[in-house]
Amino acid sequence: MTQTEHTTDSLRITLVGAGVIGAGWAARCLAAGHDVIVSDPSAEAFEKLQASVQQAWPVLRKRGLAAEASTARVRYEPDLAAAVAQADFIQESAPEREDLKRRLIAAIDAAAPASTPIASSSSGLLPSRLQSDCAYPERVLVAHPFNPVYLLPLVELVGGAQTAHEAIAQARDFYQQLGMRPLVVRREIEGFIADRLMEALWREALHLVNDGVATTEEVDAAVVYGAGLRWSLMGTFLTFHLAGGDAGMRHMLEQFGPALKLPWTKLEAPELTDDLIERVVDGCERQADGRSVDQLAERRDEFLSRLLDLVSEYWPENEGLTGHI
Amino acid sequence: MTQTEHTTDSLRITLVGAGVIGAGWAARCLAAGHDVIVSDPSAEAFEKLQASVQQAWPVLRKRGLAAEASTARVRYEPDLAAAVAQADFIQESAPEREDLKRRLIAAIDAAAPASTPIASSSSGLLPSRLQSDCAYPERVLVAHPFNPVYLLPLVELVGGAQTAHEAIAQARDFYQQLGMRPLVVRREIEGFIADRLMEALWREALHLVNDGVATTEEVDAAVVYGAGLRWSLMGTFLTFHLAGGDAGMRHMLEQFGPALKLPWTKLEAPELTDDLIERVVDGCERQADGRSVDQLAERRDEFLSRLLDLVSEYWPENEGLTGHI
Repeated sequence: MTQTEHTTDSLRITLVGAGVIGAGWAARCLAAGHDVIVSDPSAEAFEKLQASVQQAWPVLRKRGLAAEASTARVRYEPDLAAAVAQADFIQESAPEREDLKRRLIAAIDAAAPASTPIASSSSGLLPSRLQSDCAYPERVLVAHPFNPVYLLPLVELVGGAQTAHEAIAQARDFYQQLGMRPLVVRREIEGFIADRLMEALWREALHLVNDGVATTEEVDAAVVYGAGLRWSLMGTFLTFHLAGGDAGMRHMLEQFGPALKLPWTKLEAPELTDDLIERVVDGCERQADGRSVDQLAERRDEFLSRLLDLVSEYWPENEGLTGHI
Repeated sequence: MTQTEHTTDSLRITLVGAGVIGAGWAARCLAAGHDVIVSDPSAEAFEKLQASVQQAWPVLRKRGLAAEASTARVRYEPDLAAAVAQADFIQESAPEREDLKRRLIAAIDAAAPASTPIASSSSGLLPSRLQSDCAYPERVLVAHPFNPVYLLPLVELVGGAQTAHEAIAQARDFYQQLGMRPLVVRREIEGFIADRLMEALWREALHLVNDGVATTEEVDAAVVYGAGLRWSLMGTFLTFHLAGGDAGMRHMLEQFGPALKLPWTKLEAPELTDDLIERVVDGCERQADGRSVDQLAERRDEFLSRLLDLVSEYWPENEGLTGHI
């Protein structure tokens, strides 16, 4: 199988699909010291995956590898049934087409041990549909990671109608052991949480280019020199809580609530009902967790100052290129 | 006027409006060594502004103050006409209501030297409308900053129908001297570029909370542990260029183009025409500027690894709090 003996701490993880996301999973799993089998119809895709793992390895080494971690603990198995037959955990990362994923997951389900979790990397398809052709649908879920998978900690866990609670709990433990931040999505919707947000941004960005308002580099500059710097520390809610001054989110909603009626994006906003206002304000107060807006702002500023020092090393002019703006 | 003599290098900047944004401008302008006059109907607002400047000063000192910079070089002038009479540059940061801003800008226009630029901090109102009651509308523009103004470099410059090209050029120089990144918006639309993107995200986030899909902390966690980490380095276009593998954005559009038809956000996407595909792909290639996807990914990974070390110091559990997820 591999040059290294299989130890009790390391798991046998089967990755189905060897594209950018599959390769990212391979790097993360290998760095954590696991044995990885990759199944993909294309042997060439597996070669690319190995090259990607090699490319990621120096940064993973810098971040700290498991004692038993090795890039040699990965092997290719084009036969899907053979690839999953002894797996402790299976991660499917095929192209984002429901028909294809359903077929694949059903085939995995038929060949894998009945209790092995099967997680799909789908970025937005409904797990209830992905699991619907399976004999053991209770162990099927979505676990949606973010590129580069071996560095970004977020993974969204979404169960379908037939997914067992224990499968979600088991998956949560598994991804935490991989050093990730599992976010259990409480309601199954298309696009889940993160891609709903990213798609909104992406679609609006496409409209801006399509309408001739901005070029792609101008759109990107509008992110990286502004709000994008904040988003590595705070999401949109806590960000606006701080923009509201001492009164926080409540003041912010009074001040910018009316703008929700304006045509400031192609997306229509929900009605700002009293109930929604309360939910948003309460949520922000929970997030602030006793810290005043001033205290939050002070920590944010310290972070932003250090981030500016760091990120400006990577700005085009400091890479010897012509800047965007 | 102030304890310090007015020198030739320093400008007399008048800030109209002493809220969070006005206070941010004050800190940035003072740190750059300018003289600042603040006009606001509320003396209490000016006191808060001074407190905000004091709070920002240590981080600004760390980043490097101009030789002549001093928090003492700011004074309060409730009389608007007197406040703008001798200004070299005027920045209006009143609440985001068109009627109020139009009235204020007309009053500023009537009292300020005819050649002094008047910039509005509006985050989305049309400069053509804001300048329409002015005798000298050619020097009126929007210059939209981002909170905290004294740290985030982005400022969007938007001219109205009557704005002179020279006024935009003059404003661009001014903000560059303040250490900012002026992004000249090529077409006047409501919400400009950055707020179109932020509003899309914000509205989608409100829908998620309104529909009971997620709490505010879950929405924020979905940003800060995932895409938000990338957005401090790359905008949505270059990010997707890297997610496309070797073939970059073209492959990405083939792979995820169909998802634009899916209900993955409340926002409808534009039609992915051949023309739009070419514009997006060409734009990404310009941004890559000869760097292969592999080279870009290597720099991104080095950055992300350093960013993770930095930002994790500020994650809730490392602040002694309970984490979001």
